[in-house]
Amino acid sequence: MSQAQARADRRWMGAALAFAEHSRGLVGTNPFVGCVVEREGRVLARGRTRETGRPHAEADALGSLDEDLTAATIYVTLEPCAHNSQRGPACTDILLTAKPARIVVAALDPDPRTAGQGAKRLRAAGIDVTVGTCEAEARAQQAGFRTRIALGRPRLTLKLATSIDGRVALASGESQWITGEAARAHGHLIRAQSDGILTGRGTWEADSPSLTCRLQGLEDRSPVPLLLSATLTELPAPLISRGGRLLHHTDQLADLAVNDILVEGGAGLAGTMLNADLIDRLLVYRAPVLIGDTAPGAGRIDLPNLAAAHGRWRRTQTRALGEDYLEIYERTR
Amino acid sequence: MSQAQARADRRWMGAALAFAEHSRGLVGTNPFVGCVVEREGRVLARGRTRETGRPHAEADALGSLDEDLTAATIYVTLEPCAHNSQRGPACTDILLTAKPARIVVAALDPDPRTAGQGAKRLRAAGIDVTVGTCEAEARAQQAGFRTRIALGRPRLTLKLATSIDGRVALASGESQWITGEAARAHGHLIRAQSDGILTGRGTWEADSPSLTCRLQGLEDRSPVPLLLSATLTELPAPLISRGGRLLHHTDQLADLAVNDILVEGGAGLAGTMLNADLIDRLLVYRAPVLIGDTAPGAGRIDLPNLAAAHGRWRRTQTRALGEDYLEIYERTR
Repeated sequence: MSQAQARADRRWMGAALAFAEHSRGLVGTNPFVGCVVEREGRVLARGRTRETGRPHAEADALGSLDEDLTAATIYVTLEPCAHNSQRGPACTDILLTAKPARIVVAALDPDPRTAGQGAKRLRAAGIDVTVGTCEAEARAQQAGFRTRIALGRPRLTLKLATSIDGRVALASGESQWITGEAARAHGHLIRAQSDGILTGRGTWEADSPSLTCRLQGLEDRSPVPLLLSATLTELPAPLISRGGRLLHHTDQLADLAVNDILVEGGAGLAGTMLNADLIDRLLVYRAPVLIGDTAPGAGRIDLPNLAAAHGRWRRTQTRALGEDYLEIYERTR
Repeated sequence: MSQAQARADRRWMGAALAFAEHSRGLVGTNPFVGCVVEREGRVLARGRTRETGRPHAEADALGSLDEDLTAATIYVTLEPCAHNSQRGPACTDILLTAKPARIVVAALDPDPRTAGQGAKRLRAAGIDVTVGTCEAEARAQQAGFRTRIALGRPRLTLKLATSIDGRVALASGESQWITGEAARAHGHLIRAQSDGILTGRGTWEADSPSLTCRLQGLEDRSPVPLLLSATLTELPAPLISRGGRLLHHTDQLADLAVNDILVEGGAGLAGTMLNADLIDRLLVYRAPVLIGDTAPGAGRIDLPNLAAAHGRWRRTQTRALGEDYLEIYERTR
């Protein structure tokens, strides 16, 4: 492939990834996928996984299109599904009917029902299939779905608003605010990008957090509130009215029909989740303050020695947010 | 001044700053200064503050020079001193005798005996004096000397080798190693750049640290070992043989005839120094590990509320060192 073609491919795939983003948090346990149909440098149609997961992005893009696609290229952020479902035909079959000259796929589908079968069938029909354009970006966008496929539960992201010395509150419990406005606004953006938000009984009773996204224009993208408590018997009324759920045990997280859950609580919840190895990603918002050793941090962690602490986390991003910094760590598996 | 002249000035001042660096840690409570004598794009001589503080950089550069300097420019990283001393004439007088066309100074001398008087007298004699070339770099290089002038004691830099959650050891005391090789090598470079290295009795008795610089070629730049203990009556033998000092109280730090001290101990020493507001700079080497809430961090800090924690530190640098990151914070004053 020419460098110019590779550049054009990244451009159109970038558009497909950006369009997919609109479906984040709206598609349950489905992956949210984007699709762009291009011919001679013009977009003929675009599609994305729709609410509840159907139609899929390819069907959404092609549904209203009444054109000959033999000279077109179809960009899709995840390999077209190869398995039939009661909810609609497989995207691979739809594409075989459309018969475009070329299909560009960002990343193969980890779902064992597809897992390369889609690309294989399209190639067998004589379609030019390219796999791997913008693959890293696509895999990052699909991280929640991929965690569900790999581990059978949603991806769990722990947010810590913390000091230089790793404290999330004073010894007195005071925690509002350790980080500044820019960091807190970024935290609300992450809420909007999450399907659910999990807190613990301690934080609920101490702070009555709203657990909503308060960024202008994104208020309706607030995640479903989830409260983890072994002892409470009823979800508090404010959370019932928002469609919340009471969880008595972390095992119940796997039953939730979502892909991305943000964990926001105190040291108790953080320690419980970390000790159970249930955290896939850490968002550490770090303020330039020192708090001291009597204050709580990321919770109690059972660690026999230092060697056991190493090799579990990899820093993937560092960025300034006002006076604070955001560090992102991902669990190595 | 033309842009080309400003560019040339930064280039020659950069050479003077680099040459000054060779005297770091060798000049007691004096500033270590660099000087370059340039004419028509060629270096006629260079000088730096010599061991024990004399000769000064200007005298060092001009001492062996037997040329007419009326067409030369003299670059010096700190304003020439204007006060006479029993140890030699003021550099301002030496420069008035040399009578160069132009003198470029990186930063004014904060010593109240000079404090602008040097530049003023040179200008009064008709010499073209430029002040402020590479000023930020020069002030950073002179930070130890400037702290001594401003606060009457050496600059104190606290090193913390720490985890995501700010822990410097396990609850068991195990601390070797939290950070990786690149971070530890950088820590040894900082030792070489320090006049003294301060540790506490706890760390001394638990780890018997060498407190030396173990980088190849820099072994002879190890800082003087200092041990802080209210109760010990004698300096341990290994530290005596290295010219070490036993301090019973932090007040004694001001009496040490040095400008830059690195503080490397455990949570006890760190907390003592932070609570006394004796730390000017934090070097935080952060490894991608979580250790948990029962482990020690930066020590006990007395903090009435979160507001009191804010506004004291400013992050001035972040850089990757292998898998770890170095964060540098400076005390805002």
